[in-house]
Amino acid sequence: MKPGKFITIEGSEGVGKSTNLAFVHQWLESKGLEVVVTREPGGTPLAEEIRKLLLARREELVDPTAELLLVFAARAQHLHRVIQPALARGAWVLCDRFTDATYAYQGGGRGLSLDTIARLEQMVQGDLHPDLTLILDIDVSLGLQRASARGQLDRFESETLAFFERVRSAYLARASAAPNRYAVIDASHPLDQVQADIARVLEQLLGAC
Amino acid sequence: MKPGKFITIEGSEGVGKSTNLAFVHQWLESKGLEVVVTREPGGTPLAEEIRKLLLARREELVDPTAELLLVFAARAQHLHRVIQPALARGAWVLCDRFTDATYAYQGGGRGLSLDTIARLEQMVQGDLHPDLTLILDIDVSLGLQRASARGQLDRFESETLAFFERVRSAYLARASAAPNRYAVIDASHPLDQVQADIARVLEQLLGAC
Repeated sequence: MKPGKFITIEGSEGVGKSTNLAFVHQWLESKGLEVVVTREPGGTPLAEEIRKLLLARREELVDPTAELLLVFAARAQHLHRVIQPALARGAWVLCDRFTDATYAYQGGGRGLSLDTIARLEQMVQGDLHPDLTLILDIDVSLGLQRASARGQLDRFESETLAFFERVRSAYLARASAAPNRYAVIDASHPLDQVQADIARVLEQLLGAC
Repeated sequence: MKPGKFITIEGSEGVGKSTNLAFVHQWLESKGLEVVVTREPGGTPLAEEIRKLLLARREELVDPTAELLLVFAARAQHLHRVIQPALARGAWVLCDRFTDATYAYQGGGRGLSLDTIARLEQMVQGDLHPDLTLILDIDVSLGLQRASARGQLDRFESETLAFFERVRSAYLARASAAPNRYAVIDASHPLDQVQADIARVLEQLLGAC
C-alpha cells in the first residue's frame, strides 16, 4: 500500500484559506483520491477542545510558551490519532494549517525561539512533514480588511498589524528556505487565477507520484 | 528582598496530600510567612481549564505525548503567571504536585522517555526547581483503597494497580537520586506521626534560610 500525500494550506488572516481548501479537496477527489480534510489546531475531539482554549479571548495574559505547548499538544493528538493512520492506509490528508503556522504565529508573531519550535517539532513529528504546503500570500492590510468583515475576532485575529506582518514574513522565509516543499500563491489575484495556480502545483505533485 | 521558598507535595492516590498540605500551610503561616497555596495541573484560570481536559474520562484515546505537552503547557502558564511572581516578592509557594508528578505519572506510569520530560522541564522551568519536595509514600493498594472511597474516579485514578506501582517507584527513584531536595514521608503511619515527620523537615528548611 502506497502511503498518501500530506498537503497543508497556510496563510495569515483573510487570504481565502477556506475557499481554496474546498477547491483543493474537490480537485483531489476528482482524481479519484480518498481525501481526509482536517484542520489545526483541532481535528480530534480533544484537539478541538484545545483549539477553543487557544482561540478564546481572555482577561488572563497567555504565556507564549504555554500557547506553544498547547499547539503542539493538539498536534500530537491530531497527528497520531488522525493524520498518520490516514496516510498509512493510503488516504491523502489535506490540513488547514500545520507546523508552518506555529513558526509563523508563535515564532514570527510572538517572537518565540525558532530553535525551541524545532525541538518540539522533532519531539512530536519525528521525520513527518507535509509533502506540499500551499502558502496563500496577500498584503497584510488587505487580508485583515477581508477577515474583519467576518465579525467577532478571536484572540489571534485581534492582534496588531505588526504581528501579522511578522507572520507573513515568517511564512515567506520558510518558503524560500525550502522551495521544493512550498508553493507561494499570490492570493490577491482574482479567484480563478489563484485556483489555476493551485491546480498547476497539484498537477506537479500528482505527476511526481 | 529575599525570594521565597518553593515547596511541593507529591504522592500517588490516597496518600493524604490534601490533609498534609493544609498542615504545611498552617505550619508555615504560624511562622509568620506569606504562603501561596496552589496546585498542578492548574493554578490559573487557563491552567485549570487544561486540568479539566487532562482529567476528563473520554472515549478518545489520549496520546501520551499530547498528555505530556498539556501538562507542561499548564505548568508554563502557572509558573510564569503565579509561582515565579510570588517567589520574587518573597512569598513562599506551596504546590500540590509539580514536575516530579510528571516524571512519576507520564514517565513511570505511561512509560514516556525521561529525557523528553527533562527537555521540556528545561524549556519551561530553566533553573527553577522546588527547594523542598515532600513525597508522601504508602503501599499502593492501601492508597487506592483510600482514594476509591472518594467516589467517581478521574482518568488517572482509574488506572491499574501496575500503573500506580510504577508511579510510586518513579517517585522513590527521584528522591534517592537527590536526597537533599526530597523528604520521603511514610504516610502509612498515624497522622500525628506523619505530621511530626513533616514538621521536622520544615524546621530544617526554615533553619537553613
